[in-house]
Amino acid sequence: MKNRPKILVTNDDGIFAPGIFALWEAMTEIGEVTVVAPDTEKSAVGHAITLIDPIRVQEVRRKDGFVGFAVKGTPADCVKIAIRSLMESTPDIVISGINSGANVGNDIIYSGTVSAATEGTILGIPSIAISLSAFKNRDWVSPMVVAKTVVKKVIVNGLPLGTLLNVNVPNIPIESIKGYKITTQGNSVFRDHFEKREDPRGRTYYWMTGRVVVDSDKNTDSNAIQNHYISITPIHYQLTEESFLKTLESWKF
Amino acid sequence: MKNRPKILVTNDDGIFAPGIFALWEAMTEIGEVTVVAPDTEKSAVGHAITLIDPIRVQEVRRKDGFVGFAVKGTPADCVKIAIRSLMESTPDIVISGINSGANVGNDIIYSGTVSAATEGTILGIPSIAISLSAFKNRDWVSPMVVAKTVVKKVIVNGLPLGTLLNVNVPNIPIESIKGYKITTQGNSVFRDHFEKREDPRGRTYYWMTGRVVVDSDKNTDSNAIQNHYISITPIHYQLTEESFLKTLESWKF
Repeated sequence: MKNRPKILVTNDDGIFAPGIFALWEAMTEIGEVTVVAPDTEKSAVGHAITLIDPIRVQEVRRKDGFVGFAVKGTPADCVKIAIRSLMESTPDIVISGINSGANVGNDIIYSGTVSAATEGTILGIPSIAISLSAFKNRDWVSPMVVAKTVVKKVIVNGLPLGTLLNVNVPNIPIESIKGYKITTQGNSVFRDHFEKREDPRGRTYYWMTGRVVVDSDKNTDSNAIQNHYISITPIHYQLTEESFLKTLESWKF
Repeated sequence: MKNRPKILVTNDDGIFAPGIFALWEAMTEIGEVTVVAPDTEKSAVGHAITLIDPIRVQEVRRKDGFVGFAVKGTPADCVKIAIRSLMESTPDIVISGINSGANVGNDIIYSGTVSAATEGTILGIPSIAISLSAFKNRDWVSPMVVAKTVVKKVIVNGLPLGTLLNVNVPNIPIESIKGYKITTQGNSVFRDHFEKREDPRGRTYYWMTGRVVVDSDKNTDSNAIQNHYISITPIHYQLTEESFLKTLESWKF
């Protein structure tokens, strides 16, 4: 393994989220860390980039030596600006997280955490997204251990161009985790529902609510987590549905 | 073809953009149209959804009988709320656009136009994204004709579950267009660069600039447009990189 790799740490929960602090702490043990993250929570922004507004960057210093750049922008913006402008040299690896809440199934296309890693991949850097499967009572120890393990493996083995790793960790003590599973993106979906309400001035507004419907295929990301495994899904961003090209040709436009 | 299909029209340039007006006009010729679109421009929001804020909806009436719902939310929000709450019955088809500017290559993962169609697909409805390859001096006639042609074909033939169509139209008169090409997502990328500036109060800010680098593979979306063809790319949102699963297994986590 390369001595002290340069690691870019980012996330979508914002620079003040506990998950990025945990990730920073884990990464400082194995490399030189630069933190560049959104100044506020950017969950579910998808792979957004900021074209219309100027991007502002501010240095943030926290306890225990945590130093980072807070960016008025999206996770993808953070990775772009870190690599193009803020870092003196290109990082060896980009890691995004530790997200609060799993990023599995179809929800990964909404995920700011995954989008930051996708951006790193587009820029040619091996990239990882890591999420913890819980929104409260979060135990950061397991994902910190997992982050170190996965980063070390990626530094040693590399990743193919255009492929990133989406890692999800169940929110249980490390000793209860059954191991790692190489998985596929499942078809779990968020069955949404809109709750219609009226504000004090009589105007209608809606809240999105819903529940996650999990698929039954046992090789999927969501299934692995439910069964107390860490899931690692290799993902890409080549969206062509090759299998439908021929049929579409036969439509004779 | 089904008599007067129910068509949901949306976009990411906002309900007051000329492109959605053109699309509405074209679609009213062939079906019963409901327009549900963001109240302001949402370009490059990716596949964002609104979880933190309430969603507000307002009716918009414009000249020529254009009626629509303006949603304080993203394109994906619009499709969700249209289908779950605003429309009386499920639409037969979702069409998003006509976007100002092509959505080709890797940029489709940033695209709000595509994300709206992806959302329709996730909800089980045949969906299409359509974009015009220009930001100014736009000729809406060609994409209007194309939108009608593609919608009719999709109504007749259907689309496989999980597959949507990403359509791009060159900004030239209809008689100069050479025809349709079934294409793949190219690797054209936006080579970004951040211009560092100082505001009047001495604080640093950045503007993202850059240029598109086009790939040379002749079957791609961007190549088709450059050569005066309409491109139709079938796309999906199953991101698993199957070819890397075995290698990843061999890493022995």
